[in-house]
Amino acid sequence: MIITLSMNAALDVTYRVPALVPHTTHRVSDVAERPGGKGLNVARVLAALGHPVTVTGFAGGPTGAEVRRRLAAGPYAGRITDALVPIAGQTRRTVGVVDAGSGDTTMFNEPGPTVTPGEWATLLGVYRGLLTAGGGADAVALCGSLPPGVPVGAYAELIREARAAGVYVLLDTDGPALRRGLAARPDLIKPNSEELTGLTGFAEPVRAARDAHRRGARAVAASLGADGMLVVSGDGCWRAAPPARLAGNPTGAGDSAVAGLLSGVAEGLPWPARLARAVALSAATVLAPAAGEYDPAAYGELLPRVEVVPATS
Amino acid sequence: MIITLSMNAALDVTYRVPALVPHTTHRVSDVAERPGGKGLNVARVLAALGHPVTVTGFAGGPTGAEVRRRLAAGPYAGRITDALVPIAGQTRRTVGVVDAGSGDTTMFNEPGPTVTPGEWATLLGVYRGLLTAGGGADAVALCGSLPPGVPVGAYAELIREARAAGVYVLLDTDGPALRRGLAARPDLIKPNSEELTGLTGFAEPVRAARDAHRRGARAVAASLGADGMLVVSGDGCWRAAPPARLAGNPTGAGDSAVAGLLSGVAEGLPWPARLARAVALSAATVLAPAAGEYDPAAYGELLPRVEVVPATS
Repeated sequence: MIITLSMNAALDVTYRVPALVPHTTHRVSDVAERPGGKGLNVARVLAALGHPVTVTGFAGGPTGAEVRRRLAAGPYAGRITDALVPIAGQTRRTVGVVDAGSGDTTMFNEPGPTVTPGEWATLLGVYRGLLTAGGGADAVALCGSLPPGVPVGAYAELIREARAAGVYVLLDTDGPALRRGLAARPDLIKPNSEELTGLTGFAEPVRAARDAHRRGARAVAASLGADGMLVVSGDGCWRAAPPARLAGNPTGAGDSAVAGLLSGVAEGLPWPARLARAVALSAATVLAPAAGEYDPAAYGELLPRVEVVPATS
Repeated sequence: MIITLSMNAALDVTYRVPALVPHTTHRVSDVAERPGGKGLNVARVLAALGHPVTVTGFAGGPTGAEVRRRLAAGPYAGRITDALVPIAGQTRRTVGVVDAGSGDTTMFNEPGPTVTPGEWATLLGVYRGLLTAGGGADAVALCGSLPPGVPVGAYAELIREARAAGVYVLLDTDGPALRRGLAARPDLIKPNSEELTGLTGFAEPVRAARDAHRRGARAVAASLGADGMLVVSGDGCWRAAPPARLAGNPTGAGDSAVAGLLSGVAEGLPWPARLARAVALSAATVLAPAAGEYDPAAYGELLPRVEVVPATS
């Protein structure tokens, strides 16, 4: 079983309009809602790949209730266990407005609710229980920004707990939460180029990833956008790229990559195979018509065509 | 007791952003939610004026539950009775994005849910009961567009029921719903200039209002935007304007005018006094910082300064 933790879960709302014109009124032709936030996106892709997954984090208010209802009713509901912790605050919404013509999206992200010390303590208890339940979890993904009220050292604490329980732990966040988490020696971090440069000060990806590795991450999988992904680990360094430059919506591509990497860990695959899976899933997400979904046919077609090569700086 | 009927109730969500830039991501600094749709806006103003009011119409899904929760928790909750009919569909949201700099608003209006024949029949039954409850209602306001599934002749039926029960009935809608409703001879319609021209084909307000009066409305109160309001009735014709041109947000100004007119009916005021109240409330709504609220101090200050004069074309 894989655990994903969403500190800042969301209800993603997507509106389709003919064209976004500021300071006018738009009749929305189509409304879609789904559970969102990095951890829940990762969980959905893992479930689609056939992995049982338990989601935890916080959910509150009518929007939190709707997130839980949709988790329980979604296409892979049988493989997703809801271990979200109820909070008094309201789960944030994100509203994405898609121009039907260009396909461009304008995002409005609500601020997340403030978490109380008691709610944070409850989450810690739930998390500890999940790490050891049923003979122990295969892996855990800690995803996203920290909501107000959660201590900045929260990820470091969660990483230490996972390592003490012998559970593989991936951290996907940025800024101070990433910097502080790194000190607790996570098994894997998955920054994008910008986050990696922010962390290390180096713009060149291999150099930056090696630096992050030296600072505490046992492995660094850096997503390079359309150029694919780079891994620096104790076992070696590899780079993988999709077979061609792809046009589409990159929303959720990073979360699909996390799911690809973690599913590979849970299946005991070597690094090059994990990397190929992450890059193919990420590309299949860019190609999917709906933001944050991946196209299973494109994934099957792309996977054998991803080229993985040793990386040198 | 006054009844307001909202066929297309909404949960109004307002986001504040520094500036709306299409095809980028915005961090929303402030989120506000409140019950919306014309009928609920009219009810809120009536309650603020001291009138007991019963709201009916449709509410469904998590957004409908939130509308009901906020009606029961709002500042005038003691004067508002919730007689909304539950439906299987989800109450629509409207999302208004306010540029903090300019104050300009960009609106996204979700489509309303489809109403089933059974739900419509239930609403009719609830409505009939409200018309005669407690010795009979003082007045009823039928507000807004018709949701899919409700017959186009719905307002005509609701108007006939009100007239049979001896209850004063106001219709505030447009297009075919207004045209069909007119045939059932409502006591009052409150079109704006554009709706009035659409109905009658005449651009000149007095001529258009007289034509609408002849077509079946016992009285026509035409809102003329910043120029105030015009009334054509069997008792005479008057025009009223605010003491000065006002800058602000006109959202909800028409709903405040409806509340002003209806409160005057319920209190037995003559036409000129109703008209002054409608114009002052409308102006106090434009001046209020939050869309759809009115500024009580501005209302008190403006009311004695509204000039009402006999109207001639």
